Amino acid sequence: MAKTNPGRFFEDYRIGEVIRHAVPRTVSGGERALYQALYPARHALASSDEFARDCGLDRAPIDDLAAFHIVFGKTVPDISLNAVANLGYAEGRWLRPVWPGDTLTSTSQVIGLKQNSNGKTGVVWVRTKGVNQWDETVLDFVRWVMVRKRDLGVPAPDTLVPELKPALAAGDLAIPEGLDFGRYDFTLAGERHRLGDYEIGEKIDHVDGVTISEAEHMMATRLWQNTAKVHFDATNRNDGKRLIYGGHVISLARALSFNGLANAQMIVGLNAGAHANPCFAGDTVRAWSEVLDRAETTHPGVGAIRLRLVAVKHGAAPFALKDDGGKYLPEVLLDLDYWALMPL
Amino acid sequence: MAKTNPGRFFEDYRIGEVIRHAVPRTVSGGERALYQALYPARHALASSDEFARDCGLDRAPIDDLAAFHIVFGKTVPDISLNAVANLGYAEGRWLRPVWPGDTLTSTSQVIGLKQNSNGKTGVVWVRTKGVNQWDETVLDFVRWVMVRKRDLGVPAPDTLVPELKPALAAGDLAIPEGLDFGRYDFTLAGERHRLGDYEIGEKIDHVDGVTISEAEHMMATRLWQNTAKVHFDATNRNDGKRLIYGGHVISLARALSFNGLANAQMIVGLNAGAHANPCFAGDTVRAWSEVLDRAETTHPGVGAIRLRLVAVKHGAAPFALKDDGGKYLPEVLLDLDYWALMPL
Amino acid sequence: MAKTNPGRFFEDYRIGEVIRHAVPRTVSGGERALYQALYPARHALASSDEFARDCGLDRAPIDDLAAFHIVFGKTVPDISLNAVANLGYAEGRWLRPVWPGDTLTSTSQVIGLKQNSNGKTGVVWVRTKGVNQWDETVLDFVRWVMVRKRDLGVPAPDTLVPELKPALAAGDLAIPEGLDFGRYDFTLAGERHRLGDYEIGEKIDHVDGVTISEAEHMMATRLWQNTAKVHFDATNRNDGKRLIYGGHVISLARALSFNGLANAQMIVGLNAGAHANPCFAGDTVRAWSEVLDRAETTHPGVGAIRLRLVAVKHGAAPFALKDDGGKYLPEVLLDLDYWALMPL
Repeated sequence: MAKTNPGRFFEDYRIGEVIRHAVPRTVSGGERALYQALYPARHALASSDEFARDCGLDRAPIDDLAAFHIVFGKTVPDISLNAVANLGYAEGRWLRPVWPGDTLTSTSQVIGLKQNSNGKTGVVWVRTKGVNQWDETVLDFVRWVMVRKRDLGVPAPDTLVPELKPALAAGDLAIPEGLDFGRYDFTLAGERHRLGDYEIGEKIDHVDGVTISEAEHMMATRLWQNTAKVHFDATNRNDGKRLIYGGHVISLARALSFNGLANAQMIVGLNAGAHANPCFAGDTVRAWSEVLDRAETTHPGVGAIRLRLVAVKHGAAPFALKDDGGKYLPEVLLDLDYWALMPL
Repeated sequence: MAKTNPGRFFEDYRIGEVIRHAVPRTVSGGERALYQALYPARHALASSDEFARDCGLDRAPIDDLAAFHIVFGKTVPDISLNAVANLGYAEGRWLRPVWPGDTLTSTSQVIGLKQNSNGKTGVVWVRTKGVNQWDETVLDFVRWVMVRKRDLGVPAPDTLVPELKPALAAGDLAIPEGLDFGRYDFTLAGERHRLGDYEIGEKIDHVDGVTISEAEHMMATRLWQNTAKVHFDATNRNDGKRLIYGGHVISLARALSFNGLANAQMIVGLNAGAHANPCFAGDTVRAWSEVLDRAETTHPGVGAIRLRLVAVKHGAAPFALKDDGGKYLPEVLLDLDYWALMPL
Repeated sequence: MAKTNPGRFFEDYRIGEVIRHAVPRTVSGGERALYQALYPARHALASSDEFARDCGLDRAPIDDLAAFHIVFGKTVPDISLNAVANLGYAEGRWLRPVWPGDTLTSTSQVIGLKQNSNGKTGVVWVRTKGVNQWDETVLDFVRWVMVRKRDLGVPAPDTLVPELKPALAAGDLAIPEGLDFGRYDFTLAGERHRLGDYEIGEKIDHVDGVTISEAEHMMATRLWQNTAKVHFDATNRNDGKRLIYGGHVISLARALSFNGLANAQMIVGLNAGAHANPCFAGDTVRAWSEVLDRAETTHPGVGAIRLRLVAVKHGAAPFALKDDGGKYLPEVLLDLDYWALMPL
C-alpha cells in the first residue's frame, strides 16, 4: 500500500463533500515573536497585551494573517498539492480572535467544480473553516484553485460555479466581542489618522521596501505547516528558483502598510485577492494601498475601512496596477481587497 | 590564567568520571514554534495540545528531537570541541516527555577509551543523560567520538570498549505515562496507516525535498546552544563552507518522513546512527525509510515501529545506501536506526 | 494629508520635549528562543529559570540586550529615521529585569542640540526610558545622533551640549532586587572564573567567530521592530548592501564573549559605545574584551566588572583598536564600554 500522499486530482472532488484537514496546531507567544521577526509587523493591537486590553480585549490576539496562514496551510495537502494555480479568494471573514494557547484545525467543503475546456484541468471551489478548541469558527473563506486531472478519461462533473459576493458589506463583518476604540491611544499606535481622515479613492505609498531572502520565506511558510514542494525544493524548477508562498507576500505587504495605515488594526474581511505575478528571493517588495470604502460599526469608536493592498517589485511605476488590456503589470505581485477595523 | 575553553583532549578523559555540562535551559512555546519554522515538522502529537490530550498526555510535549538536540548541545564544549569525528550513537532512550516550562541540564559519564594506533587520536565513549528540574532523566544515550591528543607523549590509557546493544529491544523502550492511542484520530494525524499496515522490510520514499540555507542551519544549531566553530565560522575551512550540524540533518529527515510515516508519533529509542557524509548549505535533502521491526507495547493501542531513516542528497539512486565494499555512497548523508510509537 | 511618517529633521526637535514612542510590545518565551537562535547566547541567568531562582530571582529574565533592543527599536521612527550617524551612548542603566509577559513602551526626552558648522546637519541628544506595564522604568540611556535638516533656512537653535558622565560609577548601578550569588553554580554557568580572577587591564580573545547572513540580521532587527530602511532594502545603496543594525553586532559580540566571560551574567550599565565601522552580511565577526574596572556591590556575592567589548572582522590584528592618529582601525566594528554583574 502506497504510504505517501499523492494529493487529490480534479476528479477526486465531489460537490458537498467536507474534508477534515490534518494537523491540529496549538499557538503560543512563539508564533507571535516569529511573526514579528519575519515581517515588519507593528500594529499595536497584535503587539501589546496592554494596548489590546485598552481596546476591550483580554489580551493581544495572534496576528489575523498568522491565523489565516495556519488555517490555510492545513488545506494545502488536500486542496492545492496538484494545483496549477491559486485563482482567487472571496467571502473571507475573521469571526473570532485567535489567542496564544488556542488550538486550530481546518475543514474545507467543496462548493464548486468546473472542468476546463482542455479536459486536462478543472477549477475547484472550497469554503475553508478554521475552528478553535471550543469548536468555534475563527475564520471562514472561499478559495478556488485550478487542479490537474489524473485520468483524462474520467468524464467531466456537472459544472457548478458558486455565487460569491464581489465584496463583503460592512454589515457582514464580525467585530470581536468587547472591542471598543473609545480610549484608543493614537500615539502608542504610531499614527494620528482616524477613519475620517481617509478619503475613498485615496492612495497611499507605504514607502518602505524589503528585499526577501530564501531563509525567511521558507521559515515563514514552514511555520504555517504549508508543505507545497515549490517553496522549499530548489530542484523543483529548471531555473533553481523557489516560488515564494503567496501568503508571504500578503503578510509582508500588510506589515509594510503600517506606515500610513498604522490604525487599520484588525483584518476582519477578505473580499478578493490575486497573486498577480510570482515572487522570488532577491525581489525587493514595496506596497501601496487604495481606500475603497469606509463604514461605521455597532461597536463604540470602531469603524471599518475597505482597502486595496498592492504589493509590487522595486521599480514599479507609482500606483500602476494593470495595462490597457486589463492585465496585471509584470511588477505587480499582489492585489488584495480587504476590510480592517480602524478608530472613528 | 587563560579564561577561554580550549576543550578537552583525549588524555583528559578518565573512565568513570562524570562531567556536568553547562548551561541549563528552560524551554517554552518559543522553541516549539522555531522548530516548526526550521523543519517541516507536522507530527500531530508535538503540534497540538488537544491531540496530545486525546492521546492521554497533559499537553503537547516539545519535539523529541528538540529535546535530544538541547541535551546534546550542552555536551559539545566538553566532549566534541576537539573531536575529529562523531562516530556513533547507541542505547538512546527517551524516558520522559519534555514540556514547555521544563529546564534541562546534561551530564556525561566516560564509559570507554581506546587510543588509536597512530598515537595521535583516540576514541571516547560517553553516556549522556538529560535531566529536568525534578531531577528526572528525560533522555539517556551513548555516543562515541574520535578526539585529538594534545600531548602525543602521554601514554595510552588502558583500552576499554563498552559493550553496547546493537539495538534496543521493544521491551527496553519507555512509553510515556498515560499514553493511549485508543481514541487516535488518523484523519487529524494526516495518514490512515496503522502499525499493521507496515511490513518489515518495506521501504518508503518520502518524496519531498528541502534545499538548505546557511541561516536556517545556523539558527537551528544555535537554538540548541551548540557552539562548535565549524557550523558558524566560514573562515574555518579553506573552501569557506560551514559544515552543517549532523543533528540538523536528523531533524530535517525526520520531518520529511511525515509523508509516509505521519503516525510514527514519538521517538522513544535511538539504536544507531551514522553521519555518512558532510552536508552543506545548498544541498537539497531527501529522505527514505525502511521498516526494520514492529512490536506491541503494554499501553492501549500503542505499538512500536523500528525504522531506518536515511537522508540523501538530491539525485541519489532510489533506496541506495552502500557500495559493494560496504561503504556509504557519497550521496548518503545520514543512516539512523530508531524506534517510534505508532497506533496499532 | 500625508499619511506616512517622513521622520523628524534637526529643526523639529526642542530642548526638553518628551516624545512618546509607538508601539508597545509584550514579550514572551518566543523572544527568548529567537534570541538564542539568532545569537550564540549562553549566559545561564537568562537561559534557565532554575539557575535564576538559585540566584534569588523569580525566573530567568529576558536577555538584557534584548530589552535594550526593544526599547531602542521604538525610538527609531522618531529619532533616527533621518539620522546620518549614530554618534554615541552614555549613562545607560538597566533598572529592572524584563520578564516574559512584560509589556514595554519607550519615551525619549531631548536633552541636547547642536547645529553643525556646515548648517546642513545637527546633533540631537536624547535620554530614552523603557517602561513596563507597571510604569516602572526598566532601562534608561542617553544616545546622540547626527540628523539632517529639512530646511537649511531655519536658524540654528541655541546650542546645549549635555554634561554626561564618561562612565557610570559602580555605585550608580542598579542591582536587581533579591540577586544573590552566594549559591552560584560555576559548573552550570560554564566557567570557574570569579571577579577576583580578572585583572584590570587583562585582555581576553573570545576565540569564536560567526559569519553573518542577511536573513539572520534582518530577522533580529525586525524582532526589535526597528524599521530603519537601510537594514532591509537592498536597493537603498548603490552597492546593493544592507547595512547591519549596530545593535546586532553588540548582541553578537556579547554572546561570543561567553567564552571567557561566562560569569559576566547581567549587563547593568552602558558607559559608552561606538559603531566604528559598518558591518555587512558575509563578514565574520570575532570579539575581544578588556577588563577596565572591578567593584563589589551591596548584594551577597555580587560583584561588578567593567568591560570594553570590541567586535572585529576576521583577520584583525590581536587586540588592535586604533591607529596612531587615534582613529579606529578599519577591521574594528564595535567598541563598547559596559558594566556587568559577576560572582565575587
